Amino acid sequence: MKPKNILYAQSGGVTAVINATACGVIETAKQFPNHFGKVFAGHNGIVGALNEDLIDTSLESDAAIAALRHTPAGAFGSCRYKLSHFEKDRSQYERLIEVFAAHHIGYFFYNGGGDSQDTAHKISQIGEIMGYPIQCIGIPKTIDNDLPHTDTCPGFGSVAKYVATSIREATYDLASMYATSTQVFIMEVMGRHAGWIAGAAGLAAEQYGDGPHIILFPEIPLDETTFLQRVHHCVSSFGYCSIVVSEGLKNKEGKFLHEVGSVDDFGHKQLGGVAPVIAQMIKQEHGYKFHWAVLDYLQRAARHLASKVDVEQAYALGKAAVELAVQGHNAVMPTIVRTGEAPYTWTISHVSLAEVANKERTMPREYITEEGFGITDIGRRYFAPLIQGEDYPPYLNGLPHYVKLKNIKVDKKL
Amino acid sequence: MKPKNILYAQSGGVTAVINATACGVIETAKQFPNHFGKVFAGHNGIVGALNEDLIDTSLESDAAIAALRHTPAGAFGSCRYKLSHFEKDRSQYERLIEVFAAHHIGYFFYNGGGDSQDTAHKISQIGEIMGYPIQCIGIPKTIDNDLPHTDTCPGFGSVAKYVATSIREATYDLASMYATSTQVFIMEVMGRHAGWIAGAAGLAAEQYGDGPHIILFPEIPLDETTFLQRVHHCVSSFGYCSIVVSEGLKNKEGKFLHEVGSVDDFGHKQLGGVAPVIAQMIKQEHGYKFHWAVLDYLQRAARHLASKVDVEQAYALGKAAVELAVQGHNAVMPTIVRTGEAPYTWTISHVSLAEVANKERTMPREYITEEGFGITDIGRRYFAPLIQGEDYPPYLNGLPHYVKLKNIKVDKKL
Repeated sequence: MKPKNILYAQSGGVTAVINATACGVIETAKQFPNHFGKVFAGHNGIVGALNEDLIDTSLESDAAIAALRHTPAGAFGSCRYKLSHFEKDRSQYERLIEVFAAHHIGYFFYNGGGDSQDTAHKISQIGEIMGYPIQCIGIPKTIDNDLPHTDTCPGFGSVAKYVATSIREATYDLASMYATSTQVFIMEVMGRHAGWIAGAAGLAAEQYGDGPHIILFPEIPLDETTFLQRVHHCVSSFGYCSIVVSEGLKNKEGKFLHEVGSVDDFGHKQLGGVAPVIAQMIKQEHGYKFHWAVLDYLQRAARHLASKVDVEQAYALGKAAVELAVQGHNAVMPTIVRTGEAPYTWTISHVSLAEVANKERTMPREYITEEGFGITDIGRRYFAPLIQGEDYPPYLNGLPHYVKLKNIKVDKKL
Repeated sequence: MKPKNILYAQSGGVTAVINATACGVIETAKQFPNHFGKVFAGHNGIVGALNEDLIDTSLESDAAIAALRHTPAGAFGSCRYKLSHFEKDRSQYERLIEVFAAHHIGYFFYNGGGDSQDTAHKISQIGEIMGYPIQCIGIPKTIDNDLPHTDTCPGFGSVAKYVATSIREATYDLASMYATSTQVFIMEVMGRHAGWIAGAAGLAAEQYGDGPHIILFPEIPLDETTFLQRVHHCVSSFGYCSIVVSEGLKNKEGKFLHEVGSVDDFGHKQLGGVAPVIAQMIKQEHGYKFHWAVLDYLQRAARHLASKVDVEQAYALGKAAVELAVQGHNAVMPTIVRTGEAPYTWTISHVSLAEVANKERTMPREYITEEGFGITDIGRRYFAPLIQGEDYPPYLNGLPHYVKLKNIKVDKKL
């Protein structure tokens, strides 16, 4: 029988290393010509699968596929799209089976976060329920680091390295200028529901006085009085105050700070990021001169400063997904297992998608200091290994040389 | 006669490479023990000189001084402080002479931008006017790139490399997501008076369709209608639109956009960066989903992504300042002279401080495309050499390992 083809799709917010996973999938699949036909990729994730909009990765050169390892973002396009519940609407699943059948697809690898693993879980069941034989493997990816049963999620370690480096550099700047200029710097990072990224930024502070001096977590509702006292204490002690704030910071009433906003000296309400809201709060209370930055997409796209551990894990999980398929698995997700610290060692295992779907891993409270403005030694021991090592992309004309694939479409059959 | 001491001071906003210049000064001065005594540094720039708050750099290890080459920000502290006019208030100059005399200082190196070169020029004249023998050398430094008579200013090339890399990475992200999510990304960069930094970000676009698709310069007052049409055109053509905006963008009435603000759907006026103002403008007209980032200090502190050319020029200018002093010069500033392109070659020359003081180099209009949203080939040829080469700092525990000097103070004598 002719080997069945693989369909690989990227899902959700992209990262600096999701293409390293794609690279792991494609390169490993080539090593099993008896098991697999071609590797197709969904153009814009599952949306491409539904639209029969597929990319033939076999038409890319080996060099282009290898270059995926050092190229950020989603080379085949990703999507924010959630399949409806199987029970409510079978038509989307029937359409997927139609496309799978038309293109002789027997393996579906879905590379994404929590929602995507839930989707992968549903698709893994269509074999049994709808009579189409498919092996479905979820592959973890999310800078949010909120998938259960894995030590970390590819993408997170590189964001962690970028935010910790950035706040260290900005704090050096602040330390140079505070005497006659800026005394407070605020850096806003991603993390709407959990403070994994904000916490990782705390790695920049290794000695007393190092920044960030204050971290504001989504897990800890902002106590304005205590916070403003703390800022004053830092400026009194060090001359300046370096702050990391998570976009998901809430007030005591449970509302997002960036939605509540603040009112400036002119009575204007501020909207936008949370960093300017915090800045305004400090200015009104203490009058300190401030600067603020909002990293937004830059933090998850910054392949130029990727963590080597993160890149290696991203690749290894792609490779593992293919190997799990070879072994006949369905409805599983490969995971990272931490086997040692200092030096960090890890291995690959796997878990049933049923155990991953719709479960969110929150950051342990014990990672946050009691007063809520920093990370503990336990937290530090968790985060530190994930940012180890550098994995620079090649440069051309002074800029990172990232690949753009040809992304040649598979002829439609439907 | 005992060789006189050097006073070195950092001034104005710091950069990723101003410490490389300090390294060049200190290491080179050691090679001329017959000419120079110690190198003192002003703690927080000229403010330290006025307060007799001096640092003895000879008490640092050779390794610590060498590490300045890869450490961002101002290791001795910088300042935003302008000396009053000589004619209006002689007392500050008399105080400086008092401090210089007390500490046997015969050489003053002032490392800064336009205002600082003006200050250096004034101090260079006190020898003649007030009878204190001093050789005063200005050393260029500014991410604003606005000093005349030099091909570029140390600090600018590294910012250029960082912003071009960042918008390239963010555009890859946008390209992955636009089908079902964000269609517009806006990155705000520094440059209150000139578009040098915004222009350099244009290096990221090498082929048709590459981002940034639109650059908004301080030199080109925003024509809202044309701009919004252009955004629509990009989204229609590419599916998404990647934008770089300079903090110094003005409207047709000459007001800064970030001061004018914009009014959101709820009638709230927005304040803060210009990026959210532009985002709101686009959303109101087209309804596109947007994200925005404000780089702020991160761009000038990002030593992890420094331009090798920039680091080498920063060091060379520090070295040249010392050599000019050895040659007996006063009231001069070493400069970079471009001697070739492709490959870029440069040499060091010098210019009289009188020709530098109070002159601002504006960006040539011919660097900006006629319609005002991008850079021309002429501009590209100017910018491209300045971001060449990487000069990575050492890493420890997964983060850049920057030096913190002991900064031991010189005993006060006054």
